[in-house]
Amino acid sequence: MKEKAILLAHCASVEGIMVDITDFLYKNNGNIVRFDQHVDTDIQHFFIRAEWLLDGFNIPSDKIQEFFKTLVADKYDMKWEIQFLPSKPRIALFVSKYGHCFYDILSRYDNGEWNIEIPLIISNHEKFRGIAEKFNIPYFHIPKSKDNKSQQEEKELSLLKEHKIDLIILARYMQILSGKFIVEYPERIINIHHSSLPAFPGSNPYKSAYIRGVKFMGATAHYVTEELDAGPIINQNVIPISHRENISQMKRKGKDIEKVVLAEAIWSHINHRVLVYKNKTVVF
Amino acid sequence: MKEKAILLAHCASVEGIMVDITDFLYKNNGNIVRFDQHVDTDIQHFFIRAEWLLDGFNIPSDKIQEFFKTLVADKYDMKWEIQFLPSKPRIALFVSKYGHCFYDILSRYDNGEWNIEIPLIISNHEKFRGIAEKFNIPYFHIPKSKDNKSQQEEKELSLLKEHKIDLIILARYMQILSGKFIVEYPERIINIHHSSLPAFPGSNPYKSAYIRGVKFMGATAHYVTEELDAGPIINQNVIPISHRENISQMKRKGKDIEKVVLAEAIWSHINHRVLVYKNKTVVF
Amino acid sequence: MKEKAILLAHCASVEGIMVDITDFLYKNNGNIVRFDQHVDTDIQHFFIRAEWLLDGFNIPSDKIQEFFKTLVADKYDMKWEIQFLPSKPRIALFVSKYGHCFYDILSRYDNGEWNIEIPLIISNHEKFRGIAEKFNIPYFHIPKSKDNKSQQEEKELSLLKEHKIDLIILARYMQILSGKFIVEYPERIINIHHSSLPAFPGSNPYKSAYIRGVKFMGATAHYVTEELDAGPIINQNVIPISHRENISQMKRKGKDIEKVVLAEAIWSHINHRVLVYKNKTVVF
Amino acid sequence: MKEKAILLAHCASVEGIMVDITDFLYKNNGNIVRFDQHVDTDIQHFFIRAEWLLDGFNIPSDKIQEFFKTLVADKYDMKWEIQFLPSKPRIALFVSKYGHCFYDILSRYDNGEWNIEIPLIISNHEKFRGIAEKFNIPYFHIPKSKDNKSQQEEKELSLLKEHKIDLIILARYMQILSGKFIVEYPERIINIHHSSLPAFPGSNPYKSAYIRGVKFMGATAHYVTEELDAGPIINQNVIPISHRENISQMKRKGKDIEKVVLAEAIWSHINHRVLVYKNKTVVF
Repeated sequence: MKEKAILLAHCASVEGIMVDITDFLYKNNGNIVRFDQHVDTDIQHFFIRAEWLLDGFNIPSDKIQEFFKTLVADKYDMKWEIQFLPSKPRIALFVSKYGHCFYDILSRYDNGEWNIEIPLIISNHEKFRGIAEKFNIPYFHIPKSKDNKSQQEEKELSLLKEHKIDLIILARYMQILSGKFIVEYPERIINIHHSSLPAFPGSNPYKSAYIRGVKFMGATAHYVTEELDAGPIINQNVIPISHRENISQMKRKGKDIEKVVLAEAIWSHINHRVLVYKNKTVVF
Repeated sequence: MKEKAILLAHCASVEGIMVDITDFLYKNNGNIVRFDQHVDTDIQHFFIRAEWLLDGFNIPSDKIQEFFKTLVADKYDMKWEIQFLPSKPRIALFVSKYGHCFYDILSRYDNGEWNIEIPLIISNHEKFRGIAEKFNIPYFHIPKSKDNKSQQEEKELSLLKEHKIDLIILARYMQILSGKFIVEYPERIINIHHSSLPAFPGSNPYKSAYIRGVKFMGATAHYVTEELDAGPIINQNVIPISHRENISQMKRKGKDIEKVVLAEAIWSHINHRVLVYKNKTVVF
Repeated sequence: MKEKAILLAHCASVEGIMVDITDFLYKNNGNIVRFDQHVDTDIQHFFIRAEWLLDGFNIPSDKIQEFFKTLVADKYDMKWEIQFLPSKPRIALFVSKYGHCFYDILSRYDNGEWNIEIPLIISNHEKFRGIAEKFNIPYFHIPKSKDNKSQQEEKELSLLKEHKIDLIILARYMQILSGKFIVEYPERIINIHHSSLPAFPGSNPYKSAYIRGVKFMGATAHYVTEELDAGPIINQNVIPISHRENISQMKRKGKDIEKVVLAEAIWSHINHRVLVYKNKTVVF
Repeated sequence: MKEKAILLAHCASVEGIMVDITDFLYKNNGNIVRFDQHVDTDIQHFFIRAEWLLDGFNIPSDKIQEFFKTLVADKYDMKWEIQFLPSKPRIALFVSKYGHCFYDILSRYDNGEWNIEIPLIISNHEKFRGIAEKFNIPYFHIPKSKDNKSQQEEKELSLLKEHKIDLIILARYMQILSGKFIVEYPERIINIHHSSLPAFPGSNPYKSAYIRGVKFMGATAHYVTEELDAGPIINQNVIPISHRENISQMKRKGKDIEKVVLAEAIWSHINHRVLVYKNKTVVF
């Protein structure tokens, strides 16, 4: 895999941006392998993602950010980042008692589908220690109650820092994280919710879907924000259901969309394809 | 098309029902062309739909209901109906200013896809009088305001009765019907809502979907009940969307799912395939 | 609707293209409302579509093509076109005995969903003359047999020319057009095939789908080329089926995807969103 | 999980079947938990699946098959089987170099999603020995060449017999099994093909899909028969693609539908929900 830089940026859509960006990229001999641009015409906002090879680019890697800031970003008051690939993001898995997403992520990891590290697993149950050990991943059992939640989150945060975690995946982790925790990892905690949000937030969406008699059910991967199940949606999918699916069949079928929806969201995140603006995402 | 009887029934699931029903149908020489049965095991409730040829059936057509009531329905405290096909249900179309569902239904009618009559169209606008006249369907312009709503609904009800209407289709009719109106046509008013309920009830769901940043949008056909957009769902469908669809593109794409979802719900209803129980449907 | 220019272009992906294009568009004060770019990295081919307001653009409308040719297109040996909106493409409808796509297009036309003219309808049957007359569209009955096909196609071509037709829609037209005919309207004849090509080309795909026992069926809109059902695919869609759908139910359900798939392809074409390269499409 | 019997049967659709079956099941006090029936009206063929509790059923478990044969099956020349649950089918996994389906099945197994045994894994490569050992499953490396294929299949068959295998899963096993092998496990070998058959059979379907420019791609799980990729389809699914997916992205996305489609087919098979007739399936 060749070394690449990836630009993610957004700002108000005004004249000149595209010329400045293409000048920056192309006139400096950037070999662009992917270029995506979007203007949300309803709010006149500009989004861009560009991916180019470092080899042959006129600006040295360690200067790219400084140059981009000066030549482009500051002019337009952009929110932006430039990332480099290959990188190996360090992911912490949080899991409770449902294993389907958890196993799926471990499988992709062990099978080499994703270029990641999983330095630790955190769970409020002992249940999955065995499988964690099979894959040689440290497993921390941190049970939570009303009384010790704040204290236990401190412990978790200190583990996350110690292991230099870049991204937290809540793989059906059945504990609500506090605002204090979330603020430490803005747009870096991904949760999978087992419904097609905004339908059926909160607990037991399959039962709610059954009671309401919907003909589709789904799953939603989103960044965690302080308001429960209301963060920016990264990915969703749905499947048709009918009277033939009782709650237990919904749960069974739901597992498969949950794990695929979550995995695709993780892939988009670690490949720097997600931009967040106004509690929504642009996924290039 | 051969003459057929259709049984739709449901009751608590207890011993004996299936034997009594199969005895009734098969021992009387019923030539069954379709037989669907369902037990909702979460609430132990039994649903059945059977469709058989009248030709050769031992019980004469005009006695079938009486016999079924005595031999089967009363024993199990069933909610049931027996319908006969071919029939030509008489449908009233209600429309406002969006024509896509309206045109679609007229097309199916004129093209002979459905075996129905459309004796009248009611609208709170004059807009579609021209097209109604092309298809020779009486068009009643009944505008509504806060002040005259109750009076105008009286007028509508009397038109519906005069024209012996079996089914009312709200083809994007943008007026809320009163409880007094709805109660006259229980499970006989079908509305199309332009979102995948329960997400985004009420007005302007496309805008809400845009703001929430969902990755799927949909349409829902449901029986109208007094609570807005909360009646039994007959049919739904969804399509993927992304940041590339602004509100105007959502509206454009939404039209196509709306009209198809509504049409399929109407087809299910007029072919006696829908059972309603606990504000949900079983669609066989 | 404001006046806009639309550039569609593709060429081998080499250095400099993007700078030249963004210079052309942005440095001349183009107010870009949509900009899409794609590089097919498997074959190193570059595709672009840009849509900008004429108002304020430095190059006068009647010079845009000349300037683009000189400043950009010739340098890169591009295949390109620049179109202007609003325009009112003139569409000829060809239909046989199935009316669902035909009615659907007429509905969108009459309801003002598309900005088009339909100056004539051609059919090998008399069946739809009545509905054509309702919509005041000239209807030409041109029946075909082995013996008169070439002669009848001449008649059709002369009608198409006389009416200055831009685009031909085969709305379930059940006659195979000759190569001689097709070559007159390259990438300007759109057909709807009632299967998800390349599965089940040719006649009776629903029966073939039934016999093969597939669990999905679909529809495909494509540009017509000399090889039957093998032209560039513009749009497809599919729906799940099961043993519960017999051939007649497949046909019924198929109608709804056929008409929606075809309509979306037409919309993409008349909005200049389709690029054809190597018998495939890029639909922006 | 309570003990249950499951009847799967099909025969020509003639009078009397349903009465005899409901008499058999209901009059003997069968507590039916699921009952599905289907008549293919295009060929007048009858299919049934019934699932009932053994507890309370008048006919003892070990006599059910004899009684059903005498009282029902022989009268109608049925193809039928009666199975009992819970059972623990013994599954052999065949895998080559792609691990996604393989890991997915191991995950469901280890996580207890399915009530199965996996007594052995067979591969023509050494690649996955490590993961097999983590899960304590014997791993047999049986490489194949033109010259030794017949001999190696003998070895495989003897291992399968020795381990009393009920079902063989080809989890992206890239070797074609001989007719001699297949005939030993009729309707008991499930393959996953990485396209939506009948489109793109054989090798490299993603490349073919890319070249043809289709807008959907899919996966198909089917029973293996002697004709390559032509056996009865158990399950399919598809996802939309566009010019934005190159072959490598298709492969990536394809993995997720492949594994889910295969898993659902396995679930249907081990829960005795699949009937095969005329090279097609009825999946209840």
